[in-house]
Amino acid sequence: MKCKAAVAWGPGQPLKIEEVDVQDPQAGEVLVRMVATGVCHTDAFTLSGDDPEGVFPAILGHEGAGVVEAVGEGVTTLKPGDHVIPLYTAECGECKFCKSGKTNLCSAVRETQGKGLMPDGTSRFSIDGQPIFHYMGTSTFSEYSVVPEIALAKIQVDAPLEKVCLLGCGITTGIGAVLNTAKVEEGATVAVFGLGGIGLSVLQGARMAGAARIIAIDINEAKFEMARQFGATDCVNPKDFDAPIQQVIVDMTDGGVDYSFECIGNVQLMRSALECCHKGWGESIVIGVAGAGQEISTRPFQLVTGRVWKGSAFGGVKGRSQLPGYVEDYMNGKIEIDPFVTHTMGLEDINEAFELMHKGESIRTVILFDK
Amino acid sequence: MKCKAAVAWGPGQPLKIEEVDVQDPQAGEVLVRMVATGVCHTDAFTLSGDDPEGVFPAILGHEGAGVVEAVGEGVTTLKPGDHVIPLYTAECGECKFCKSGKTNLCSAVRETQGKGLMPDGTSRFSIDGQPIFHYMGTSTFSEYSVVPEIALAKIQVDAPLEKVCLLGCGITTGIGAVLNTAKVEEGATVAVFGLGGIGLSVLQGARMAGAARIIAIDINEAKFEMARQFGATDCVNPKDFDAPIQQVIVDMTDGGVDYSFECIGNVQLMRSALECCHKGWGESIVIGVAGAGQEISTRPFQLVTGRVWKGSAFGGVKGRSQLPGYVEDYMNGKIEIDPFVTHTMGLEDINEAFELMHKGESIRTVILFDK
Repeated sequence: MKCKAAVAWGPGQPLKIEEVDVQDPQAGEVLVRMVATGVCHTDAFTLSGDDPEGVFPAILGHEGAGVVEAVGEGVTTLKPGDHVIPLYTAECGECKFCKSGKTNLCSAVRETQGKGLMPDGTSRFSIDGQPIFHYMGTSTFSEYSVVPEIALAKIQVDAPLEKVCLLGCGITTGIGAVLNTAKVEEGATVAVFGLGGIGLSVLQGARMAGAARIIAIDINEAKFEMARQFGATDCVNPKDFDAPIQQVIVDMTDGGVDYSFECIGNVQLMRSALECCHKGWGESIVIGVAGAGQEISTRPFQLVTGRVWKGSAFGGVKGRSQLPGYVEDYMNGKIEIDPFVTHTMGLEDINEAFELMHKGESIRTVILFDK
Repeated sequence: MKCKAAVAWGPGQPLKIEEVDVQDPQAGEVLVRMVATGVCHTDAFTLSGDDPEGVFPAILGHEGAGVVEAVGEGVTTLKPGDHVIPLYTAECGECKFCKSGKTNLCSAVRETQGKGLMPDGTSRFSIDGQPIFHYMGTSTFSEYSVVPEIALAKIQVDAPLEKVCLLGCGITTGIGAVLNTAKVEEGATVAVFGLGGIGLSVLQGARMAGAARIIAIDINEAKFEMARQFGATDCVNPKDFDAPIQQVIVDMTDGGVDYSFECIGNVQLMRSALECCHKGWGESIVIGVAGAGQEISTRPFQLVTGRVWKGSAFGGVKGRSQLPGYVEDYMNGKIEIDPFVTHTMGLEDINEAFELMHKGESIRTVILFDK
């Protein structure tokens, strides 16, 4: 079949709307009609060329939601008409990682996914016979996408896809990092570095966890109002201080925070986030993705005196088994999504969505495929 | 009173046996007659001048055991004749740290201790009126030492002080890092970098925890026999491989270890220890103390993909409340100490103990004050 998709032809180039050929789903694969997709910083990161795994030409997008159109041979857990969220972190239930009970990092399709291919090593997308690479196993910037069965979370049919698509990445990542990775407890003090979609979701997660003090940190003060709506009790602009931001936070909190989260991908701020933690027990969670080759550093004394450095991918959430619960939490009002959607537009305007994000004017633009 | 002590007059100089004046214990302080003390790498580290907190002249030593000789005003939990192990990590039970339930890093006497002074900001040691600094709040290289009440663990009187003195630092640090900090579980795979007293104790702790595979790593193969006695299932010399040691360990273990421990203080090996951990759940514990200003580094991707970087000081053990249990475990055969004591000598030969350690010929030399 043929459909419209936004194709990334090369690093740094605007996406181009093309008519692409989409091959039928093969064994264990599912054809999804995309209804909505968010545009996330990770898409922009790959498009910039900084992502060492980035391959071109590709169909980006990983924050989508849609409806199953057709299933390949052997697919048993999904059928046409099911509502789904594509998962860039699959859940096969059978690999060493899934069975460990300690991580959500399923390895089943990881290798081919990282190369922009389906598990059989080929692509389902092409233009005039030229293969177009998949992206993060999801490629949600296409009207139709082929996704492995184990990389689709089946969700309740009454959930609005143009909202819950954002649970496919940022919001779940932020909330999950708080609840699953850090396990923030009631009364805790939390610092959040960076107030994009992930950072705001961390604030939301911290509020859900009952944190008593939630410090939001960004150099763009325009984000502070929204941060307060999501639970920030203090908003700090590092530019207002001569001292390093970690020292500012330590001074504000009588020794440091219980938990901190880096939501930008800046290795200097990852260090600040660790070092603003309280001696003896403070834990810092790296969520942001740094550029290729960049490294984090600190004095080992920071760890020996009790700080813990961790990271989180997709909030530690197992997509197939746990994401439906996040959708349910949205439906019953426990998780807020709507304020994140600051803009909506059709696929043909997708480059504008990237511009809004780069200018810091949007939190999330949602692309609606029927708009 | 006067007594003999080994005095460190300056960085890099041999210790000198001197007759020192020891002032009476003040309020909240206890005079301890030292019976035995280990000589540990940390003493050598400070003596070398690399320790940023090192002050001279000082009486070093922090791995001792002795008998209470006299108590100062207000001391209620100890009396003359009690057997004690001095604690460089005190336990006041009342500070924010002690009350947190999350750490053993009591802050009560930390500030003055780091300056080589008693809590009132003065020293109890002097020679001809010149104050001699305390060290780690313990100064066990002296026949008599004055120690805060909250920095003494009272232990059972039938325990041999010339053995259990080693529970004052290295052995407890190693075992505690496994049991308290990492919480290694049965069947786990463990890597231990460095087979000095701490590393061997980590091996012992890993065996106590029921680890299934325990990989001991050192460039001194003379240590492998002892390592095997303490539970190592594999001994690896990094010099035998062209590949980085982390890659060697990852290949040996089908993806990496569940827990790793750095027991040297080498920041490059701290990185190796982290990076040999299994994706998704591996945890690395820094125990070694690095030189002033040295930093650890890694790609943040290591953390985002599920590895955890931690540290441990005194094995996370709360000295006053938990160390007596370690003594009990030694007495009933659960903890081995005796093989660590490779040499014993009198105080006047203490410089020889440092030499044996530097040459890698001893595990621990125990100084016996009546020898």
